Amino acid sequence: MSKVNLKTLAAELGVSVSTVSKALQNSYEISEETKQRVVTLAKQRNFRPNVYASSLRRQQTRTIAVIVPEIANNFFAFAINGIEEIAQENDYHVLIYLTHDSYEKEVSICEHLQSGRIDGVLMSVSTETNDYEHIAKLMDKGILLVFFDRVRHEIETAKVTTDDFVSGLNATEHLIEQGAKRIAYLSLSSKLSIDNKRKAGYMEALLKHNIEFDPNLVVACGNQQHEAYQRIKELLTSPNRTDAVFASVEKLATETYMVCQELGLKIPNDLKVICFSNTTIASLLNPSLSTVVQPAFEIGKQAANILFQHLERKNISILNENIILKSVLVARESTGC
Amino acid sequence: MSKVNLKTLAAELGVSVSTVSKALQNSYEISEETKQRVVTLAKQRNFRPNVYASSLRRQQTRTIAVIVPEIANNFFAFAINGIEEIAQENDYHVLIYLTHDSYEKEVSICEHLQSGRIDGVLMSVSTETNDYEHIAKLMDKGILLVFFDRVRHEIETAKVTTDDFVSGLNATEHLIEQGAKRIAYLSLSSKLSIDNKRKAGYMEALLKHNIEFDPNLVVACGNQQHEAYQRIKELLTSPNRTDAVFASVEKLATETYMVCQELGLKIPNDLKVICFSNTTIASLLNPSLSTVVQPAFEIGKQAANILFQHLERKNISILNENIILKSVLVARESTGC
Repeated sequence: MSKVNLKTLAAELGVSVSTVSKALQNSYEISEETKQRVVTLAKQRNFRPNVYASSLRRQQTRTIAVIVPEIANNFFAFAINGIEEIAQENDYHVLIYLTHDSYEKEVSICEHLQSGRIDGVLMSVSTETNDYEHIAKLMDKGILLVFFDRVRHEIETAKVTTDDFVSGLNATEHLIEQGAKRIAYLSLSSKLSIDNKRKAGYMEALLKHNIEFDPNLVVACGNQQHEAYQRIKELLTSPNRTDAVFASVEKLATETYMVCQELGLKIPNDLKVICFSNTTIASLLNPSLSTVVQPAFEIGKQAANILFQHLERKNISILNENIILKSVLVARESTGC
Repeated sequence: MSKVNLKTLAAELGVSVSTVSKALQNSYEISEETKQRVVTLAKQRNFRPNVYASSLRRQQTRTIAVIVPEIANNFFAFAINGIEEIAQENDYHVLIYLTHDSYEKEVSICEHLQSGRIDGVLMSVSTETNDYEHIAKLMDKGILLVFFDRVRHEIETAKVTTDDFVSGLNATEHLIEQGAKRIAYLSLSSKLSIDNKRKAGYMEALLKHNIEFDPNLVVACGNQQHEAYQRIKELLTSPNRTDAVFASVEKLATETYMVCQELGLKIPNDLKVICFSNTTIASLLNPSLSTVVQPAFEIGKQAANILFQHLERKNISILNENIILKSVLVARESTGC
């Protein structure tokens, strides 16, 4: 017998997954008639016991898991601190799992968590993650999940992010206002939701200022330090050199600093640099680094708050919702300020 | 009935805990007669079942826990990466628990882990931790534990650290060779094993170079950023100002940079700075920062290797052993190099 989940119920009834989920939570948004149809089919298909199973489990473990790509990254370190603050208030334990940006590791962790050692999950997907079957399976076990930062839009649940598009646009416009004409975008992975949004903001800014988009200036740097260094070095030694760099993540900006040291390029005179970053020592760099600062701690807190609210109410799913917290641009010497 | 553990057995037999532990592991170091006495009493006191219980649990969970004070710290981030590499090879999952340097949190995590969700623990204690009852209790449940970096010497098990004393001595001598005469030591907590060793190295270097030790130059900065900033500011504005700072951890060095920015003091001319640090961007700071670099990744790997070797052999305890890996001093502009 094939597995029953929100998706199969929705397909059989010809309604959306969200409708099934809301109906099972007795939401006021769903008509009594639809609720009746959903609950009846759920009972027939033996879906109901999950509710009890998951709430039973919840009372037992008082533990949530946080799945993140890495921790040698100030954004995740601060976000986890935000999560821990809320978990402490709710008297929950937090287990942190690292995927090291590996899809395989992420799948293995999700399988491991199906054994029921936790009540809920807060997750930021790896750069390699290209599908979401492993995440859907976890949720089918009655485990509540909230995404933060790196999300999968195909999964219906709450997602807490920053305004990546607008921040990408602002960062690029800032470089243009400071006189940059050939701006490169340093990307971590085109599979990442946040990376694509930041890049879309970059392209929008170029369009707005009538600067032609040059695909050669979008550099896929990848996750390996050595490889990123090489890609950036190629960019900065190619003819008709770029005069500014917008790095999607902090480590690509510090790699750019290293390459400039090697090549004898002066920041900001030869090259302007800005990046997304949560480091506390941006002002101590030589030159001080212009950054887009995400509200990392708040993002962690918000994601955790949503999760605990639903755990408390013993809901079996979380409605699809995008919560977007604003980032702040801090201009410093690396962009000529 | 009071609980039976290695300690109570040792007391009753009038031998050391280590002897009991080795005897139960059938070590060649223990005479047949002593082994017989230990095993007989262990059986009488019903201690033996623990062995089966723990090896049974080990086969079930294939999971270890890593307990660390914080992750917004490059040392722990790299050490965890080293641990994860070994865990992956052994096909184990790694759960990371953060104490946020709180003794209370550390005790709560240790209690949580007694429930048997893990086979072994790798631990670095919090700055607040002043006793070890909670750690002993965990080990009494048959859970194997290895310390790394911040250890409790009272607990008999393997401890993997760096050569804190020698590195502290070298860092201080380096400042003296660069012309410093009034060197301050910035401490995180006098409860910490590593902090005390680094300070002892500092004092040894002063003695060696006939520089009188001034207790006013040892500054307890604590774990709160704001407090640390204040303490360092007081130090740098007091009469007969210090001309060099040896910071026991990186964040106290970057706070020193911030204070110097506010006070208009120039590093290294007005003040030389060196610290223990694993940041990858020390060379990008203004001025570049002289550091004592710990082999963080290797420390994590070694600690994990010891743990897995014992899990594999289904040992019930790990012999007392200090494994010391060397740190490297990297001199840069902040000490006038």
